[in-house]
Amino acid sequence: MKLVRFGEAGAEKPGAIDEDGNLRDLSGVLEDIAGDVLADLGRLKALDLSTLPVVEGKPRLGPCVGGVGKFIGIGLNYSDHAAEAGMQVPSEPVMFMKATSAMSGPNDPIIIPRGSQKTDWELELGVVIGKPAKYVNEADALDHVAGYCVINDVSERAFQIEMEGQWCKGKGCDSFGPTGPYLVTADQVPDPQNLHMWLDLNGARMQDGSTATMVYGVAHLVSYLSRFFTLHPGDIISTGTPPGVGMGQKPPRFLKAGDVVSLGIDGLGEQRQVMVDDD
Amino acid sequence: MKLVRFGEAGAEKPGAIDEDGNLRDLSGVLEDIAGDVLADLGRLKALDLSTLPVVEGKPRLGPCVGGVGKFIGIGLNYSDHAAEAGMQVPSEPVMFMKATSAMSGPNDPIIIPRGSQKTDWELELGVVIGKPAKYVNEADALDHVAGYCVINDVSERAFQIEMEGQWCKGKGCDSFGPTGPYLVTADQVPDPQNLHMWLDLNGARMQDGSTATMVYGVAHLVSYLSRFFTLHPGDIISTGTPPGVGMGQKPPRFLKAGDVVSLGIDGLGEQRQVMVDDD
Repeated sequence: MKLVRFGEAGAEKPGAIDEDGNLRDLSGVLEDIAGDVLADLGRLKALDLSTLPVVEGKPRLGPCVGGVGKFIGIGLNYSDHAAEAGMQVPSEPVMFMKATSAMSGPNDPIIIPRGSQKTDWELELGVVIGKPAKYVNEADALDHVAGYCVINDVSERAFQIEMEGQWCKGKGCDSFGPTGPYLVTADQVPDPQNLHMWLDLNGARMQDGSTATMVYGVAHLVSYLSRFFTLHPGDIISTGTPPGVGMGQKPPRFLKAGDVVSLGIDGLGEQRQVMVDDD
Repeated sequence: MKLVRFGEAGAEKPGAIDEDGNLRDLSGVLEDIAGDVLADLGRLKALDLSTLPVVEGKPRLGPCVGGVGKFIGIGLNYSDHAAEAGMQVPSEPVMFMKATSAMSGPNDPIIIPRGSQKTDWELELGVVIGKPAKYVNEADALDHVAGYCVINDVSERAFQIEMEGQWCKGKGCDSFGPTGPYLVTADQVPDPQNLHMWLDLNGARMQDGSTATMVYGVAHLVSYLSRFFTLHPGDIISTGTPPGVGMGQKPPRFLKAGDVVSLGIDGLGEQRQVMVDDD
């Protein structure tokens, strides 16, 4: 099932894409693609989409999950990307937190913050938690996943790395978390570790990889993170990026107003963002 | 005004403490101490508390703010604490993110995570955002503050410092964010940079300080953080801890099941937590 949230930012309605590609309005049967709805997908799967209203036109899509409590990032999780960043593959997953206020729709503009010189892209597989997870074994971990989506883990490298302290200064800026277009339920993603993924900048391919080369796979990440805190329904894990980010180019290349980034993961849909300056 | 949230975890009701110390139930006039309510405190201040129901008994208190989007921590923000941690005073504020799922009531137990050897306390002044703040000047910053509260920024030092990556592994564990008892509105805190603060472990004073010795004060922090993202109503900034944490003792001393931590800030009330193991 492909779940979406559509409409104005902050007032999105829940929807689903049916087999013919129509957007069906779910707002008559549930409040949001969020929380308890994600913990019990059986209720959603029992719906007969053909009985629900078709939404005409092309409404804006919001982030495909609402009410997100934790927006977790994983760093250096593809060995080739660690190499391009000049860093070692970590001995255990590197976790950081993105501000949930950074979440945006898959095709919303990316706002380059004032003073930014090093806004960069990161194509990533997003994992959306379904059932709560605490101290779960790796063998059981995927039972706690509701589904998957595309994420652009936009990152300001100077804010992230060259300032005092932690990465979150460069990871949580407004609009730095395009999420979607769809939440594809886990039953339709038979192997999350074998998904082709790509990102283009102004039409030129910059990232071309596969989740097959992740250092720490989805099941390991869910299990590992659940040692530190309860993963709640709707929490999102952005699982790291393959090689080809701007920081890794020779010379480095960063985003400027007017640039267009397109990205996608096979089966999970595509995003497209135009860069704008913050007035 | 002293605002509280009372009742079972996850189902707290809004309340206020009146001039006689009675808990008044606000659930008939507003939904929660959260979001838009914090952006427009005028509505709250216009209430005549004497007309609202008194809550009898001693209900559990929850975190004094609901619907928190960002739970932001500031590191090494008292010069003496930086010294005891063996770190330099930073040249600009060190920001990290605490998981919002770590938030708990002021007197809820603190759950020592499995495998933890180094769970530690940190007495802090919490700043609750009222009006949204983006690129605000320091001179205007306090206009965006709804009020203040006590926070125990509980921290697992091995998870925070000895593992790969970022501090958030040791900052966001379940129950690691006691917040309250009250949100005291800003009009009742004439100078947030002159508040006495203290923390006792099993009755022995461990931290005894004042917000007067903060390196970066509240107005600077709000202004600084608003460069990176929009601060939304209900976002919380935990502004760092004075000297006296367990990591700084000689030898270091960490929390074990049965230990009792009490802490308070003048005018903002007190917290008391019992440590328990995670079964």
